[in-house]
Amino acid sequence: MKIALAQLNYHIGNFEANTNKIISSIHEAREQGAELVVFGELSVCGYPPRDFLEFDDFLKRCEKSVQEIAKHCTDIAAVVGAPSVNPKVEGKNLFNSAYFLSDGKITSVHHKALLPTYDVFDEYRYFEPATAFQCLTYKNTKIALTICEDIWDVEDDLMYTRWPMEELIKESPDLMINIAASPFSHQHPAKRREVMKKNVARYQLPLIYVQHVGAQTELIFDGGSMALSAAGKIVNELPYFSEALSIIATDNINELQENLIALNKYELIEQALILGIKDYFNKMGFTKAILGLSGGVDSALVVTLAVKALGKENILPVLLPSSYSSDHSVNDSIELCKNLGCRYEKISIADGYDTMLKTLQPIFGDAPFNIAEENIQSRLRAVILMGIANKHGYILLNTTNKSEAAVGYGTLYGDMCGGIAVIGDLYKTEVYELCRYINRNEIVIPENILTKAPSAELRPNQKDSDSLPEYDILDALLYQYIEQRQGPHELVKQGFDTALIQRVLKMVNSNEWKRAQAPPILRVSYKAFGSGRRLPIVGKYLG
Amino acid sequence: MKIALAQLNYHIGNFEANTNKIISSIHEAREQGAELVVFGELSVCGYPPRDFLEFDDFLKRCEKSVQEIAKHCTDIAAVVGAPSVNPKVEGKNLFNSAYFLSDGKITSVHHKALLPTYDVFDEYRYFEPATAFQCLTYKNTKIALTICEDIWDVEDDLMYTRWPMEELIKESPDLMINIAASPFSHQHPAKRREVMKKNVARYQLPLIYVQHVGAQTELIFDGGSMALSAAGKIVNELPYFSEALSIIATDNINELQENLIALNKYELIEQALILGIKDYFNKMGFTKAILGLSGGVDSALVVTLAVKALGKENILPVLLPSSYSSDHSVNDSIELCKNLGCRYEKISIADGYDTMLKTLQPIFGDAPFNIAEENIQSRLRAVILMGIANKHGYILLNTTNKSEAAVGYGTLYGDMCGGIAVIGDLYKTEVYELCRYINRNEIVIPENILTKAPSAELRPNQKDSDSLPEYDILDALLYQYIEQRQGPHELVKQGFDTALIQRVLKMVNSNEWKRAQAPPILRVSYKAFGSGRRLPIVGKYLG
Repeated sequence: MKIALAQLNYHIGNFEANTNKIISSIHEAREQGAELVVFGELSVCGYPPRDFLEFDDFLKRCEKSVQEIAKHCTDIAAVVGAPSVNPKVEGKNLFNSAYFLSDGKITSVHHKALLPTYDVFDEYRYFEPATAFQCLTYKNTKIALTICEDIWDVEDDLMYTRWPMEELIKESPDLMINIAASPFSHQHPAKRREVMKKNVARYQLPLIYVQHVGAQTELIFDGGSMALSAAGKIVNELPYFSEALSIIATDNINELQENLIALNKYELIEQALILGIKDYFNKMGFTKAILGLSGGVDSALVVTLAVKALGKENILPVLLPSSYSSDHSVNDSIELCKNLGCRYEKISIADGYDTMLKTLQPIFGDAPFNIAEENIQSRLRAVILMGIANKHGYILLNTTNKSEAAVGYGTLYGDMCGGIAVIGDLYKTEVYELCRYINRNEIVIPENILTKAPSAELRPNQKDSDSLPEYDILDALLYQYIEQRQGPHELVKQGFDTALIQRVLKMVNSNEWKRAQAPPILRVSYKAFGSGRRLPIVGKYLG
Repeated sequence: MKIALAQLNYHIGNFEANTNKIISSIHEAREQGAELVVFGELSVCGYPPRDFLEFDDFLKRCEKSVQEIAKHCTDIAAVVGAPSVNPKVEGKNLFNSAYFLSDGKITSVHHKALLPTYDVFDEYRYFEPATAFQCLTYKNTKIALTICEDIWDVEDDLMYTRWPMEELIKESPDLMINIAASPFSHQHPAKRREVMKKNVARYQLPLIYVQHVGAQTELIFDGGSMALSAAGKIVNELPYFSEALSIIATDNINELQENLIALNKYELIEQALILGIKDYFNKMGFTKAILGLSGGVDSALVVTLAVKALGKENILPVLLPSSYSSDHSVNDSIELCKNLGCRYEKISIADGYDTMLKTLQPIFGDAPFNIAEENIQSRLRAVILMGIANKHGYILLNTTNKSEAAVGYGTLYGDMCGGIAVIGDLYKTEVYELCRYINRNEIVIPENILTKAPSAELRPNQKDSDSLPEYDILDALLYQYIEQRQGPHELVKQGFDTALIQRVLKMVNSNEWKRAQAPPILRVSYKAFGSGRRLPIVGKYLG
């Protein structure tokens, strides 16, 4: 059988666009000789639909879309993902389902059993797990059809108590198909291949795996759909970060050789972030971005990525010097804009800052300069950037990195502002690595930006290292605490200094209230701040 | 048997405080002759612990606390809530458990089966549902011990597929005990009584129900623990919004009469919000609050509640007039402060506003006055309030109401700032109702604040009604869409104008990005913005 893998970029809740896109792909697949075309999980409504699933009207539109798509399935079959209603009184009202469409109608519906409810996933919030499983037969091929997580519980520490493939295999299927929506982290493409191979090794069947591409706010779906032979070889891997329709013939699939796309951490991250910016703007209906350029590495990286995502003509970098800004901050930023071919604006905050200090003088009295004055500078920059954004239709890009977000080194309503946080899931050391990767062939980000000591420049001669440990140590500790969830005792065993552990964990835990008001952060790691990490704000633990 | 109901205010992750509080109550209960003392769900760590449960160190501290508490259970038994480890390889790693402690040790552990995973609840994120159930026997009394949601699946549309009491009842227990953490909404105390009565009616047993009191960020636990006779009478109801230890003798419980506390919507809401403010400050370690007084009803209500929660000496209201502010805005605010016995500050934003316009002149050019200038005023107020907050150690209270939050009628990084949103779950019409309730005996909030037309005063003669439908219509529509999840077709059937529906739903759905950066909102309804309502930011549905 010739099967088309349709790796598409859906838009949550945009039924018209999703349905049209699916129908076009069905026609294209048929023209290319495919007998079956496979789309991703919940493809009809986009993933994750979240609480839209609580609206009957939304569910009806899903149903209507599936019916509409089914009509186009003549001389070709299709698998699409959509919610379906649980007919029983007991249990949640919905299933997360795969619809098999052929002969112009829905011929079978298959429900997901393993409902990821951890990190960024909330599926048991909406769906009842399936308890009954059946293969489908199409053109004499018996297919075991599962949905994403259904085939992921392959670690030693099992997360679920029943496994669809263990039951479907009893029917001796010829082929496995899995439809998925599997968000990116830089480790995930390799992990995904490993999981698919484990399934093939266990069930000794070819596997067709189709997932999404495209970003939905903070979640980036990276594509990398694939076909595996029964021998466990990935014989067809679809591109990362772009839509694709690719056809594989299952008849000779077991004769094919492995054919893998090269994976590189910073190449993946760069492409993910570019797609993340692009889709945030596209799906929100925005075109133009504004951001402040401080002369530091974070804003330098963000403007570089934004130019790649949106085009230099759509980016407005703004230099916002104060009397504490060094000359090199301004000069380095101007050089960067020249390298990028970008125009820029330069607006001093000095008058605004002086006026605010005069306005506040009756209250501040002769209290010494402290964090209050530092934050006023940062907040006035936000007032200016948001003013321009509101006047001329720009969206502000946030430039906070993960190290800063972790320890609360940033001004709420100041540099923490923005529509989307582009590099909020990159530790400071990773920010440098990505800049160097971008500079690998020609210098885009001026060398001086990468070599000078990081500074917020909110008081004379300030350095990040006045308030924070050196970033290589800080980032190593944060990684162990945030990604690996190591507690104080484990961290001591790993050789971190006891006082440092206490200081850093306290900073992380006492800044939940700040992070709770931060913009969504493009997720590129296994544990990003935001929807996948939920801590109580008033919690008093290690803080 | 004499059973003590211990309704306590826990602090998430504060093991020392929680353990000491529980041990004190054990001693107090014993002194008062109790043979058993019952605490709430996950009482040892506080509820909801959220992702703290992913840290081994956190779990070890829970275990250590239970062991410590058990040592004090001599000549008295206790039920406490804590996580426990699932010994099986399959399934999630934890159970949500009730520990029975007697003779100085843990004598049995009972796991929760029904794991609420909807609205503000995420229990299946962490816990495996129990599948085995057993009563415990203590002093010749056979007890069916369950945890919160375990006895809540009593509606016609069942949410789960197995029910612990249906299995425990087969052992013919003498008594039901349920330990809970059941967050407040103004409808919830009545609902809770109804659910308890349904259980007693079904199983014909007395029921001891013990829940939490106290706020954990946005969630307010209202108390109202209770004892029911087998006849279905609530014979002992503990107070709302305060800690209590109350003893009931089960021997004669069926002879007692019903004894209910009067419930009034606005009395409950007022007390809930006062507790919400108080506990946010207590648990975060703050004492002093600042807020802007606009002369409008929202900030008038918030300052009044804050004075009741924190004491007038800890509140700093700040009047922040501009050239667009009316005289009555200033005068009404001053009168309100006098009524409250509060000092206040008055700081004009006029100089700051002029300076920012001059600073932005090269970019703004001669573009006409629009939302950009309006937002600059609102954001400068935030800069001033946050400046004072940072300089003198205040926390900013947010004054956004639910109607504004719903339609995005507010300035991000301006009036949307604050540590906690006090009235963000009250529609504008409810804000007025609560003010009138507070004024019922004597005028606190000046009458003029309650009768003048609402205005943001960001341009000359501005009225809310220039941009929004009248609040009585808007709020009715929002309630149907947000709380009742009625879609466009249902709303038309209810008689709302089609164009209005489209306009309002579009406003709600296209402002997710703004609400995503709002402060946590004290929850007083069944559907508040925040952790209990999760919509995709880039979603394109009715927007």
